[in-house]
Amino acid sequence: MTFAPSGIVTLLTDFGSSDGYVAQMKAVMLRVSPKLRFVDISHDVAPQDVAQGAFLLDVSARWFPAGTVHLAVVDPGVGSERAAIAMVAGGHALVGPDNGLLMHAAETLRDSTHRAWRLDNVTAPGEAGTEPAAPVPQGLLSSFTFHGRDLFAPAAALLAAGLREPESLGRPIDPGPALVPSVEGPDRGRVVHVDRFGNLITSLSAETLDQVVSLEIGGHRVPTGVRFYAEAPAGTPVFLAGSSGRIEVSVRGGAAADLMDLSVGAPVVLLRA
Amino acid sequence: MTFAPSGIVTLLTDFGSSDGYVAQMKAVMLRVSPKLRFVDISHDVAPQDVAQGAFLLDVSARWFPAGTVHLAVVDPGVGSERAAIAMVAGGHALVGPDNGLLMHAAETLRDSTHRAWRLDNVTAPGEAGTEPAAPVPQGLLSSFTFHGRDLFAPAAALLAAGLREPESLGRPIDPGPALVPSVEGPDRGRVVHVDRFGNLITSLSAETLDQVVSLEIGGHRVPTGVRFYAEAPAGTPVFLAGSSGRIEVSVRGGAAADLMDLSVGAPVVLLRA
Amino acid sequence: MTFAPSGIVTLLTDFGSSDGYVAQMKAVMLRVSPKLRFVDISHDVAPQDVAQGAFLLDVSARWFPAGTVHLAVVDPGVGSERAAIAMVAGGHALVGPDNGLLMHAAETLRDSTHRAWRLDNVTAPGEAGTEPAAPVPQGLLSSFTFHGRDLFAPAAALLAAGLREPESLGRPIDPGPALVPSVEGPDRGRVVHVDRFGNLITSLSAETLDQVVSLEIGGHRVPTGVRFYAEAPAGTPVFLAGSSGRIEVSVRGGAAADLMDLSVGAPVVLLRA
Repeated sequence: MTFAPSGIVTLLTDFGSSDGYVAQMKAVMLRVSPKLRFVDISHDVAPQDVAQGAFLLDVSARWFPAGTVHLAVVDPGVGSERAAIAMVAGGHALVGPDNGLLMHAAETLRDSTHRAWRLDNVTAPGEAGTEPAAPVPQGLLSSFTFHGRDLFAPAAALLAAGLREPESLGRPIDPGPALVPSVEGPDRGRVVHVDRFGNLITSLSAETLDQVVSLEIGGHRVPTGVRFYAEAPAGTPVFLAGSSGRIEVSVRGGAAADLMDLSVGAPVVLLRA
Repeated sequence: MTFAPSGIVTLLTDFGSSDGYVAQMKAVMLRVSPKLRFVDISHDVAPQDVAQGAFLLDVSARWFPAGTVHLAVVDPGVGSERAAIAMVAGGHALVGPDNGLLMHAAETLRDSTHRAWRLDNVTAPGEAGTEPAAPVPQGLLSSFTFHGRDLFAPAAALLAAGLREPESLGRPIDPGPALVPSVEGPDRGRVVHVDRFGNLITSLSAETLDQVVSLEIGGHRVPTGVRFYAEAPAGTPVFLAGSSGRIEVSVRGGAAADLMDLSVGAPVVLLRA
Repeated sequence: MTFAPSGIVTLLTDFGSSDGYVAQMKAVMLRVSPKLRFVDISHDVAPQDVAQGAFLLDVSARWFPAGTVHLAVVDPGVGSERAAIAMVAGGHALVGPDNGLLMHAAETLRDSTHRAWRLDNVTAPGEAGTEPAAPVPQGLLSSFTFHGRDLFAPAAALLAAGLREPESLGRPIDPGPALVPSVEGPDRGRVVHVDRFGNLITSLSAETLDQVVSLEIGGHRVPTGVRFYAEAPAGTPVFLAGSSGRIEVSVRGGAAADLMDLSVGAPVVLLRA
């Protein structure tokens, strides 16, 4: 499936929303094309937590229409030798560092396969009042510390505006693997995210949840499954099929993560009938 | 006043901005129509605090142009028997659970009356790569836990894009009442919101503030009224007409809520000349 | 350079993102013109911290295309005699209080000079259902406490939509100076911002960083300079050229501000070869 840009760009970073960094990325993209439209996925990824960023990108990117560019920057290796890449998968494009951040989403989105290119040949527009810069070879950017603004944002904008084909951005590359397997086994996994409500979201698919009679999570036994939060007895951990298609452990009217003192990485085992 | 959509959708939730949930709602709406435009009112409503959500929606929705769709989801009863509704009031549309969240705003916005419909007949677009789903009867959604994405967002998008008339979404319903009366009495009320500056916003209208000589709030007497913050003596609580048309108690250069150790629910009594 | 509006409005405030205040500003602007597009720079400026707001506006505004309107409100003097102004600099427009908030950015953006006008003649659109108000003389606004919504947002929207020329908003004014000099000396400055990663961003230009052999910051000696974060030894403070063109002190895998117990205002001295 080829990439036909819709002009929509999503952003996912660990930059926070307070320091103007995200606005600078959007500003640069608007200099490439003032018609682009932005949707923030999250900027509150824990600093440099690539795995958390990969999870949030994966569960969100799949809901956007084909033609969307997903710009993701959680990039502890900025300025070093790690590659900067663009990918095409399932009619979406993804732009970011080649550190595993994009791969879960690319694997979820792809129809048959994904393809990737190094960002060797991207023009970075300068500050106000300057002419758009000449193409900037990687490693010689004006900034060594903010490729989000100086490399990834221009590449994403060029793709989203239809000004460049992905193939023109650089030479093909075989990107590094996803950080952890999406599925560790049918019945063994771990907590991959804790959301604002304190729900413990696991790596385990909820597809066969109707066969599960209980689960163990970080040493706690959870014997009760429900279909939705309001069906749960108040104050008692229950398991259910979460909105990302994964099994979650939740407490009605409370935060499961606090109540059970668990966080990302806690092991989960399903017990089936 | 009929509803003539402008393509603008506001969002108010208790989902936070960190977990990708809001982005998934916007993604689904962009699948319905890529032209829609979004304005976030707040996603930091305290988890499941319907009353706080109702207050923030009420004070904000009134400023938008007619033709706006207000999508609001603070929904402790998600998946249960509570109805999902769309309303039309004063040329605006509102979409969300029938738990009181929408009613203050609807009462403020309406010109003559408001009308409401159950969301019995909404098509939920699926994930990337799937065809738009057939109409999904309520209670049989793909997700029992995230009607914000799977039911309310599609309904809001269909209205905002002009693809469906409100009447076509389901059968008419008489929605439940607002959670608390907007006005508890001309001179007795309570704190309904504490904002970022620690201002204590009350339920009492500021229309006749010129007759008020002092007020009591949570056991504290506040004898000084001012027109604006900079007119207040530093460090001393004062009362004034806030930007929402309600009486506020404020401390210049400080946070009244912290200084007076008060929060939402504290009683307020006006003393008039 | 004249101002040719692009329809893009940036927003920078100390209002937070939780209370609906920013949404009300956007709502009013959409009532002026439903085509306007918004980019948030930051709403997390510390309450009433004009200097922090001025810094964030300065480092971000320069990246936007000409034709952008920058709406900035950090305004402890709201309702008092401080002037409300619009400025034009380098093909951008800036709107906000005349308290120094806009001046760093205006000085950075200007090609030859900047010009400014008092907002004496701005029409504030009312709430839903009301007619657009007649022009509101400053000092007689419906709200004394929220000029962001009632004065600055309408002015910004009128400029951004091309409905009014800057000259028509009021009489020319010579705005007050920037709060602190952008440059305090070639080799002596201070910390002007601490970002989400705990990086200490200084007032000192990174242009001649290659001559710097070490620096002292708040009593700490930092002898190591690097080009990018990943080049630094873990856990050790280093200095580098930050993305805003200023010298930063950073700790790889940690927060320099916490580790060195430093914050905004800490003195910095460069030692050159």
